[in-house]
Amino acid sequence: MERERVQAMLEAVKRGELQPEEAVERLAALPFVQAGRSHLDTHRALRQGIPEVIFGAPKNPEQIAELVEAQLAAGQPALVTRIESDAAEAVRARVSGGHYDAASRLLWFGDAPEGEGEGCICVVSAGTSDAPVADEAVGVARRLGNRVESVSDVGVAGLQRLLSYTETLRRARVLIVVAGMEGALPSVVAGLVAAPVIAVPTSVGYGLSLGGVTALLGMLSSCAAGVTAVNIDNGFGAAYVATLINRG
Amino acid sequence: MERERVQAMLEAVKRGELQPEEAVERLAALPFVQAGRSHLDTHRALRQGIPEVIFGAPKNPEQIAELVEAQLAAGQPALVTRIESDAAEAVRARVSGGHYDAASRLLWFGDAPEGEGEGCICVVSAGTSDAPVADEAVGVARRLGNRVESVSDVGVAGLQRLLSYTETLRRARVLIVVAGMEGALPSVVAGLVAAPVIAVPTSVGYGLSLGGVTALLGMLSSCAAGVTAVNIDNGFGAAYVATLINRG
Amino acid sequence: MERERVQAMLEAVKRGELQPEEAVERLAALPFVQAGRSHLDTHRALRQGIPEVIFGAPKNPEQIAELVEAQLAAGQPALVTRIESDAAEAVRARVSGGHYDAASRLLWFGDAPEGEGEGCICVVSAGTSDAPVADEAVGVARRLGNRVESVSDVGVAGLQRLLSYTETLRRARVLIVVAGMEGALPSVVAGLVAAPVIAVPTSVGYGLSLGGVTALLGMLSSCAAGVTAVNIDNGFGAAYVATLINRG
Amino acid sequence: MERERVQAMLEAVKRGELQPEEAVERLAALPFVQAGRSHLDTHRALRQGIPEVIFGAPKNPEQIAELVEAQLAAGQPALVTRIESDAAEAVRARVSGGHYDAASRLLWFGDAPEGEGEGCICVVSAGTSDAPVADEAVGVARRLGNRVESVSDVGVAGLQRLLSYTETLRRARVLIVVAGMEGALPSVVAGLVAAPVIAVPTSVGYGLSLGGVTALLGMLSSCAAGVTAVNIDNGFGAAYVATLINRG
Amino acid sequence: MERERVQAMLEAVKRGELQPEEAVERLAALPFVQAGRSHLDTHRALRQGIPEVIFGAPKNPEQIAELVEAQLAAGQPALVTRIESDAAEAVRARVSGGHYDAASRLLWFGDAPEGEGEGCICVVSAGTSDAPVADEAVGVARRLGNRVESVSDVGVAGLQRLLSYTETLRRARVLIVVAGMEGALPSVVAGLVAAPVIAVPTSVGYGLSLGGVTALLGMLSSCAAGVTAVNIDNGFGAAYVATLINRG
Amino acid sequence: MERERVQAMLEAVKRGELQPEEAVERLAALPFVQAGRSHLDTHRALRQGIPEVIFGAPKNPEQIAELVEAQLAAGQPALVTRIESDAAEAVRARVSGGHYDAASRLLWFGDAPEGEGEGCICVVSAGTSDAPVADEAVGVARRLGNRVESVSDVGVAGLQRLLSYTETLRRARVLIVVAGMEGALPSVVAGLVAAPVIAVPTSVGYGLSLGGVTALLGMLSSCAAGVTAVNIDNGFGAAYVATLINRG
Amino acid sequence: MERERVQAMLEAVKRGELQPEEAVERLAALPFVQAGRSHLDTHRALRQGIPEVIFGAPKNPEQIAELVEAQLAAGQPALVTRIESDAAEAVRARVSGGHYDAASRLLWFGDAPEGEGEGCICVVSAGTSDAPVADEAVGVARRLGNRVESVSDVGVAGLQRLLSYTETLRRARVLIVVAGMEGALPSVVAGLVAAPVIAVPTSVGYGLSLGGVTALLGMLSSCAAGVTAVNIDNGFGAAYVATLINRG
Amino acid sequence: MERERVQAMLEAVKRGELQPEEAVERLAALPFVQAGRSHLDTHRALRQGIPEVIFGAPKNPEQIAELVEAQLAAGQPALVTRIESDAAEAVRARVSGGHYDAASRLLWFGDAPEGEGEGCICVVSAGTSDAPVADEAVGVARRLGNRVESVSDVGVAGLQRLLSYTETLRRARVLIVVAGMEGALPSVVAGLVAAPVIAVPTSVGYGLSLGGVTALLGMLSSCAAGVTAVNIDNGFGAAYVATLINRG
Repeated sequence: MERERVQAMLEAVKRGELQPEEAVERLAALPFVQAGRSHLDTHRALRQGIPEVIFGAPKNPEQIAELVEAQLAAGQPALVTRIESDAAEAVRARVSGGHYDAASRLLWFGDAPEGEGEGCICVVSAGTSDAPVADEAVGVARRLGNRVESVSDVGVAGLQRLLSYTETLRRARVLIVVAGMEGALPSVVAGLVAAPVIAVPTSVGYGLSLGGVTALLGMLSSCAAGVTAVNIDNGFGAAYVATLINRG
Repeated sequence: MERERVQAMLEAVKRGELQPEEAVERLAALPFVQAGRSHLDTHRALRQGIPEVIFGAPKNPEQIAELVEAQLAAGQPALVTRIESDAAEAVRARVSGGHYDAASRLLWFGDAPEGEGEGCICVVSAGTSDAPVADEAVGVARRLGNRVESVSDVGVAGLQRLLSYTETLRRARVLIVVAGMEGALPSVVAGLVAAPVIAVPTSVGYGLSLGGVTALLGMLSSCAAGVTAVNIDNGFGAAYVATLINRG
Repeated sequence: MERERVQAMLEAVKRGELQPEEAVERLAALPFVQAGRSHLDTHRALRQGIPEVIFGAPKNPEQIAELVEAQLAAGQPALVTRIESDAAEAVRARVSGGHYDAASRLLWFGDAPEGEGEGCICVVSAGTSDAPVADEAVGVARRLGNRVESVSDVGVAGLQRLLSYTETLRRARVLIVVAGMEGALPSVVAGLVAAPVIAVPTSVGYGLSLGGVTALLGMLSSCAAGVTAVNIDNGFGAAYVATLINRG
Repeated sequence: MERERVQAMLEAVKRGELQPEEAVERLAALPFVQAGRSHLDTHRALRQGIPEVIFGAPKNPEQIAELVEAQLAAGQPALVTRIESDAAEAVRARVSGGHYDAASRLLWFGDAPEGEGEGCICVVSAGTSDAPVADEAVGVARRLGNRVESVSDVGVAGLQRLLSYTETLRRARVLIVVAGMEGALPSVVAGLVAAPVIAVPTSVGYGLSLGGVTALLGMLSSCAAGVTAVNIDNGFGAAYVATLINRG
Repeated sequence: MERERVQAMLEAVKRGELQPEEAVERLAALPFVQAGRSHLDTHRALRQGIPEVIFGAPKNPEQIAELVEAQLAAGQPALVTRIESDAAEAVRARVSGGHYDAASRLLWFGDAPEGEGEGCICVVSAGTSDAPVADEAVGVARRLGNRVESVSDVGVAGLQRLLSYTETLRRARVLIVVAGMEGALPSVVAGLVAAPVIAVPTSVGYGLSLGGVTALLGMLSSCAAGVTAVNIDNGFGAAYVATLINRG
Repeated sequence: MERERVQAMLEAVKRGELQPEEAVERLAALPFVQAGRSHLDTHRALRQGIPEVIFGAPKNPEQIAELVEAQLAAGQPALVTRIESDAAEAVRARVSGGHYDAASRLLWFGDAPEGEGEGCICVVSAGTSDAPVADEAVGVARRLGNRVESVSDVGVAGLQRLLSYTETLRRARVLIVVAGMEGALPSVVAGLVAAPVIAVPTSVGYGLSLGGVTALLGMLSSCAAGVTAVNIDNGFGAAYVATLINRG
Repeated sequence: MERERVQAMLEAVKRGELQPEEAVERLAALPFVQAGRSHLDTHRALRQGIPEVIFGAPKNPEQIAELVEAQLAAGQPALVTRIESDAAEAVRARVSGGHYDAASRLLWFGDAPEGEGEGCICVVSAGTSDAPVADEAVGVARRLGNRVESVSDVGVAGLQRLLSYTETLRRARVLIVVAGMEGALPSVVAGLVAAPVIAVPTSVGYGLSLGGVTALLGMLSSCAAGVTAVNIDNGFGAAYVATLINRG
Repeated sequence: MERERVQAMLEAVKRGELQPEEAVERLAALPFVQAGRSHLDTHRALRQGIPEVIFGAPKNPEQIAELVEAQLAAGQPALVTRIESDAAEAVRARVSGGHYDAASRLLWFGDAPEGEGEGCICVVSAGTSDAPVADEAVGVARRLGNRVESVSDVGVAGLQRLLSYTETLRRARVLIVVAGMEGALPSVVAGLVAAPVIAVPTSVGYGLSLGGVTALLGMLSSCAAGVTAVNIDNGFGAAYVATLINRG
């Protein structure tokens, strides 16, 4: 609640430069924009340094376009996650200037935030089937202004593949490790590096993989210190946290 | 049901050497011994090459002693698993000639079966807390006549420890890999060797380790081919299967 | 890490026959082939005696063909599991010389490994609905060079069916027992034989069968020693382990 | 609500032999007895042919004695289940004439109901650890007036034990099959007989036996028709249903 | 194994009327018929008094027709459950003489077994959405030769509906109570009658109904004695057990 | 059972104005109407002040129309929930006078009950994806005669949005709080108001949201007093209870 | 945030009666009292009309006494729940004027709030084992100033017991229904009354009662409208919500 | 594996300064110390910048002392977590120089690592019962050389408490948020700050809190970006990751 701003405003009231009614209004002025039924949190760019990101999956193109326009109107870039190509086309038909990447299922308008953070984010994935989640993480991390390196198909059943990338892993300021099935890769990676590891379980696997629950349970029961986890298939969330870490 | 024996018996009936009533009796003669309320499966030594093993945990010393005596009376050695030292003492007070090992919680009477199997069973464990389960596996495998090697505290968070034992691992005819928490060790070991890996989840860990369920789920979702699993903490079961494998 | 090869290489360095830089390179030379985004583990044929097997289900024909070609280029036969007939056709249109079997959903290129192992693998299944999983196990076991016998529709609710195959069961070096619903068949089979039993739960059943979880829980809680389990519907995994056992 | 009795009562009202107010009272007269805070359902002996049975486990001796006295005062025999010997002694110190059986943990006052039902109830149990539950079933079935036969320690891992009792099993009008671990015994028994099988899962086992849940899931997923199940360790419930079946 | 028949056969061997080889053959003669990959248990009609019933859901029309023909060839009527109308038509196009009922999804060939059992089976269902399961129970019970009464839409949230059928309920020899959601109806019904109640949970409901698991848990935790349960949606299984009970 | 009506009826019997047989008939006359296989509880309007509401989801238009007609014939308004627009059209084609609202998926015939309750029901929802459930709650509450206010997209990750509605929240007699994912909103709202909070978990979210189970678990574990919960996505149930509360 | 108070304060700043610094202080003045490590929410009595209630179970007597003293110092009565008699004695030894009730495990200091609410709260419980939870609900509801009626041991397996209290149930403004095992009682009660029903699952039962989870699932899947639920054994929470409802 | 060191070593081999045998030895020299059955990973201080931390809970004082001595002998400080006071005393009786803190259950020998990291770690906890976990996080973070601030008892049911600490929260480089029950606090905190939030679920709560599982599920389903989670009650793990983040 920005004590300083309140203090300054109150001083203005005292000096008679600001009417009490107006001060009340300002205090009540809410830092969001009504967009249809949504409250777009435009204040977030100030409060958290990252503009609100639009989760596309459950929204139709009209809803997405409405939010994108509100965000652009507030002078902020817009980023939409989990949007399929046809929906992205429909949005771009309504709002000009958009870019779409099919692998990461990202749609964006406007420039990425400036600056590249302290170091590099390394996105490691266990199997080729984990690619969509890893790609989302890589794409979001880049859109949020980070340098990113990517290592894929280095599951623990063939250690020599992973170990050949040890230097790459050690260079990173923070690592995102994406794995389904038994989810053992984050434990192994965390034992090789001195940086925090954000584990992303994926819904890859069948039977007792339980749609990613097994991988998640393993990641949270990891014998390796230095591992935290996000929700299943949540490449976006991992990239967001990694960005906060990388910014220092 | 041993077609040949039936045929021979029927020939004897035909020759009049055996009365039909007696033949019926013999067909009904059941290959087990009634011991109190239990049916001790003494036939098992013939059928499976391994005498029945007595699971001590839910039984009191009187019940155990009764079964041990029945087994010894049938001319077979007796092996009791999951028996604490005081119960073992109580049994030994009733039946002479017993030996007890506290680490593996095994009590036995009589000699181990002869022969050492094809090769060596290697019992690998992830952490020091997995020792009781690993010790049970080692002890049972030895009592069943196998050569056994043991590697402990080689969890995946410090790979260099495990990798330093690569040669030991590769020597084994079959491996028993014991791990709690995320249960990732069998996947990694299976990637290093050409022998079957029997994974034993342990109840080591807390919170989301779920008493061994997480380790088990991980082992069964393993990205490495060559892994099978037994029940949580079931060192005995793993050693039993390993023995069957090692015998050829 | 093949101590001997390292020693030999170091001797060559000492003799001046090998430059240190080159030795470093060789140490770093990784035993896999980059195929698109994948790391094909061509070293596995040496390390484990069985070339890497390609899990077809989550891959498109292009990805599969790329991996098959890489494997053939490395002089190894290629085996693809869980591939439907139309995808198999698409792969065969790109890579010549393939064979496809619809029942086991297997596609392969090149000859099976020579040799037949010590004995016979017996694949037993409880109901006719378990056939796809049993067929995968039979097919994979044969492609990996084993002699295989198969017994089907011998569930425990009509014991006389199973008991009529007792001799077949006893002949096997290792048994794969496939069952859904309550998954009781492995317990019963393990009581009849002296060989290891690999239990494969299937997703057959409805309601409380829980997509195979009930069968798996039963198999891992088996009152019979000698049973281990693999993931639900994992006919491939069972055949792989059975091959390792059968090889001695 | 006994249409005839209502009709008769209304006729009496019409004839002036019964005052309307009184008729209302009688309609409201509730067929239970207030015993402390409990409502003892004394009407049950009429309605269901079996007096209410007192579940002892969560009650203290005072509460039990109060209920027993109320039941005896209503002219009915009293049966208490799941009561330990010391609690039983405390009840018997307050109410005379009681009998206690430690194995089945039953306490009773007064005679069993007359008559023996149509046939025999056969209680089959898989392992010696299932004895307490089987004993409760046997004891309750006998106290409710049935002829009972009992077969124990005939788990499916040694089929010859079970098969030797085939005739006993086939003689029964209804079977209660008690098993923990994988709970496979009811499926096998149901395949051998032409009578209904009531499966009782027990909490015997460890790890993935999940305190009886695995056995229950298996019983309800049984491939054998003719099986129904009751709650874990619910020997009483099985005996109660078996009594209803046996009465015809 | 029919001791008497064995004895008679052995007497014949003794009298020289039967050659030992032939006796061995007969002992080995298995009471089932091979139909494609299936073992049709034709012996069941003798052993259990009810011919094997064909579960249609996972089978294609060809498989079903093959089994039906085998069963008819063995002189037994054939009953197929869970078969949709188009599949039923396809079977009837191959095998003549079949009848199909869409509500119960039953297809049958030949007459129902004679006799009507001791009494009546009453099938009670909680809501209109439970109709398919209740209809299956009613249809199977009738095909197995029972008299059946049916009461529907009498859930516990409007007790007056259920209570108006009290007399119908009390007339039954055995009741099948079908309910989804919280599955409370069997508890209430069991409190009103003196006959066994077979509870059938249905997958009706949403959210925490968990596809029938909640109903099942409630039925097995019932505070009312006299309730047993079968698998979710298993109308067939309930009717089968009810038949065994009703036969006496 | 309306003691007074029974007393009056019995007085009439006593006075000879009513024959006993007829009185029995009347006592048996059940307060529901048979509509096809359903028992429409027309008595409910008297007993609970709210006519029975028809759950449309599992019913076809014919069944719905039949129930609507029965209800209208009984002089009561009819309300159908969870009905899609095409099904609603089909019903309206059979029964005239209906109104349909697509957002809340409600179809109704006849007027809402009179009266507006004590105060206002406030429906608060966390995200835009929760709209269908919130809309159902709003629609049902209005059809049942309540004043309703609605606040949407005020999830806890941007508290300033929620706090700007504090006065609206505090005005309500009862609040319905709709949230998916972690379901934290009811806890926060309950801390801000002095009225009861009915929490409605939604199936919004993915991965560990577990289809609404996570939200429900959180709501029931709420650290805030004043929160109760209904089933997942059950906007109707919440509105129904809120109506009962609001009526006083 | 009391817009009026802020406005008044700002007017005072404008008039020079209040220094800006002081206004900032006041805005920051937080409506709670620091008691050791706790923040006692003394503002709650104003905000919600009910002072904060102290959950005793996880706290030691020193912590409880500290909170009680802080609350009394703020001029509010103090109520402690889930406190055993010895801990209550220890608190009363430190703070004078307390009262303790063992059945409800409540300790309180000071008078209950005045006024009795609109009507009566009826607490209904299914079995005698549910008494501790029902007693907590009764006790808390009374301490919060409500009239309370109580009906116990009226489980659904003997409906006549419950139906004899129909008038009592219908008199209530709100009902709390406490049940373990299958938790069916709330559904039945809700069908009989026109008031909201708050269901409280209890951990009474064994096996598949799952410590109250089964009862809760049933309550939330209730086929009866008008039911909401609180956490397992949460008699306090139910009484708290009932108080909010009863206050109007 | 330190390419440079290998290169240097190989150069020495080439120059004849190092014998090949010795080089092999060195390559094989493993960076850990054998302590009893454990492999103490002394190399970790180099590899990860933080010496290995000893998890005390499952170890006896002898095992702990052995590991502490090994670590001190390697010139590293030793930190033991989850150790009760009596065990700590026993260790200190064997190894001199130790310090123990009962609140955080930490025992340590030697100085904390130098340096304080980039900024401050803020540990926030929801309720007073979460104190043990929060204290562990605070203690470990301090022992690993961080500046730490702590805010406790600021659960979401009384938002004003949390909001009064907004500035403290915003100052942190990384936050650890500890909460049981519904686990909503991390979502709310993450919405207020621009730093990463590490959520620690605790086993505080009862019934549906499920021993911390509910809190964890909520944290991983958080609607707020910026949240990751560790295992239940894992204050150590959270502090460890926070340290890695804080170090830059």
